[in-house]
Amino acid sequence: MSTKQWSELDIIRLFANSTGNKDTNLIKGIGDDCAIIAPSTEKHWLITTDMLVEAVHFNSSSHPPYELGRKCIAVNISDIAAMGGEPKFALLSVSLPDSLGHEWIAEWSRGIDSVLKEFNCQLIGGDTVRGEILTANITIIGDVEGNKAILRATAAAGETIFVSGHLGSAAAGLAVLQNMEELSKKARKLALPFIKQHLNPTPDVTCGKILRQSGMITAMQDISDGLATDLAHICLQSKISALIDETELPCHEDLSEMCKILGCKTTELQISGGEDYKLVFTVEQGRDDELINYVADNGGPPIYHIGKTVPGNGVFLVTDNGNIDITFQGFEHRGSS
Amino acid sequence: MSTKQWSELDIIRLFANSTGNKDTNLIKGIGDDCAIIAPSTEKHWLITTDMLVEAVHFNSSSHPPYELGRKCIAVNISDIAAMGGEPKFALLSVSLPDSLGHEWIAEWSRGIDSVLKEFNCQLIGGDTVRGEILTANITIIGDVEGNKAILRATAAAGETIFVSGHLGSAAAGLAVLQNMEELSKKARKLALPFIKQHLNPTPDVTCGKILRQSGMITAMQDISDGLATDLAHICLQSKISALIDETELPCHEDLSEMCKILGCKTTELQISGGEDYKLVFTVEQGRDDELINYVADNGGPPIYHIGKTVPGNGVFLVTDNGNIDITFQGFEHRGSS
Repeated sequence: MSTKQWSELDIIRLFANSTGNKDTNLIKGIGDDCAIIAPSTEKHWLITTDMLVEAVHFNSSSHPPYELGRKCIAVNISDIAAMGGEPKFALLSVSLPDSLGHEWIAEWSRGIDSVLKEFNCQLIGGDTVRGEILTANITIIGDVEGNKAILRATAAAGETIFVSGHLGSAAAGLAVLQNMEELSKKARKLALPFIKQHLNPTPDVTCGKILRQSGMITAMQDISDGLATDLAHICLQSKISALIDETELPCHEDLSEMCKILGCKTTELQISGGEDYKLVFTVEQGRDDELINYVADNGGPPIYHIGKTVPGNGVFLVTDNGNIDITFQGFEHRGSS
Repeated sequence: MSTKQWSELDIIRLFANSTGNKDTNLIKGIGDDCAIIAPSTEKHWLITTDMLVEAVHFNSSSHPPYELGRKCIAVNISDIAAMGGEPKFALLSVSLPDSLGHEWIAEWSRGIDSVLKEFNCQLIGGDTVRGEILTANITIIGDVEGNKAILRATAAAGETIFVSGHLGSAAAGLAVLQNMEELSKKARKLALPFIKQHLNPTPDVTCGKILRQSGMITAMQDISDGLATDLAHICLQSKISALIDETELPCHEDLSEMCKILGCKTTELQISGGEDYKLVFTVEQGRDDELINYVADNGGPPIYHIGKTVPGNGVFLVTDNGNIDITFQGFEHRGSS
């Protein structure tokens, strides 16, 4: 057989065309953060699955097992948060090389346990394989009030775009870990919050729930592959364009200094850096202040206006030198720590 | 860190102790064919997940992609059948090496599609990774009438044990594939049904449903790791012992001749050979004939009496030379085709 190259999009197309019998309980299949099933009208279920592979999504040599265990689960819970839901159940399959040893696995499972407890999520099944490459597959089942899950395809032109936290921190942390030996003691100290954001991100479940309850959000997604890519999903599915204001992108107070040390551009990390696991969402026209107050009143984190939606397609960065097309210019997982 | 060896049981214990918050909708967590969740009283949901790894569970060099695709899904649907349920939704994560090529993947996905359609099961989500080792993780969600799922832990002493079809066929097929070059043309022809059973097994969904509806089944499980191991799970969880009659084990009419050619023992394949994906189940005292008639009347396959349950623990093969302890003496996946 030929070995004609395939792309991830090819594979998704192959399977998205696999229809089977349409079940009347299925609200949303392939193509959003989670699938949605309606076992009852009061509650809808959100289901998401992710496969994490050594040397593609993480490197166990530089990722402490406790933090890696937490992150494996957290990044999946983030998909539930991205629909405004709450995690309920988890299934974990894992292929473990002999070389890891019992202590490593115990620490890793302690990390998994801690994040599951933190988010009231219960492990209900799984599979264990002895394999050559550390691989974990996580399936999370969450729930949300019936017909209230926030999708990607429901934004419109004329709305505003917000994010739920700093951008670029995790990407800076990854860059630090890849260049650790060249950094001064002072730079390493400065890098601590960025390293933490990379190794041990927290999914924005509380914020996602508050945003959903506000009733002002039209579309939402979590930022796993970088703003430029994740916002592009919303634009593509909602058939709109996004204009992002370079000067409004929020970041940690030390990001700019960290970037100087690393020799990289702050804006690039903010738009293309993946794995911040913050939420990006669109807001009904004219309700920005109302939303900011609602989130604050309900104990949510600061949220940040970053741009607006307009007719068209694609994601554009508005700069002093004109608009730059950044559609799908996000982070691709390939051998990061 | 030390690399003290771990066993699969260690890992399961680690995670089984991970409790999280007990959700009131959770009927059954880790430890059976599927987890059970009750979103309503009328329907319970069955959820199962399995990770299949190249060179551990299959070899893509000798397993045609269409059949491999079918098998990846079929072995998971089998867990739903083992509770008497019906599959509804599937999630598929896959790590694909570049070397496979587009045509291979297209054939593989065609196999997946065909078995999903055959069992009215719809693909609702997944994940695609470019990785070095072909790895597929499948999560299947099925349903069953509320409180009617058939568990492993509910058999009692004094019952009879049945299986839903021939044993040892898939193991014979695997042995054939591993020794193909040494076999005559005639032997290869004889081997065809065994190879087919190994490459492309069919989950017993219809039979499982009929058995559940009969109301006469006390415990059930599918045979993936061999009768000796899978029946041991029922015995361990139900706190009983099983006596299996060597002379009653059903097999394909040509298995004995095939075993002669292969130089292996028929009984050994029947009790230790894995991957037949037939059902093993216990039947309420005194209802054997009634059950056999019920299954036949409802269009089910032939079912076979193979032994009985008694007080004690473990699985024993009753032979002319006395009882042989075969508890957990089943098949372990390690580099089979």
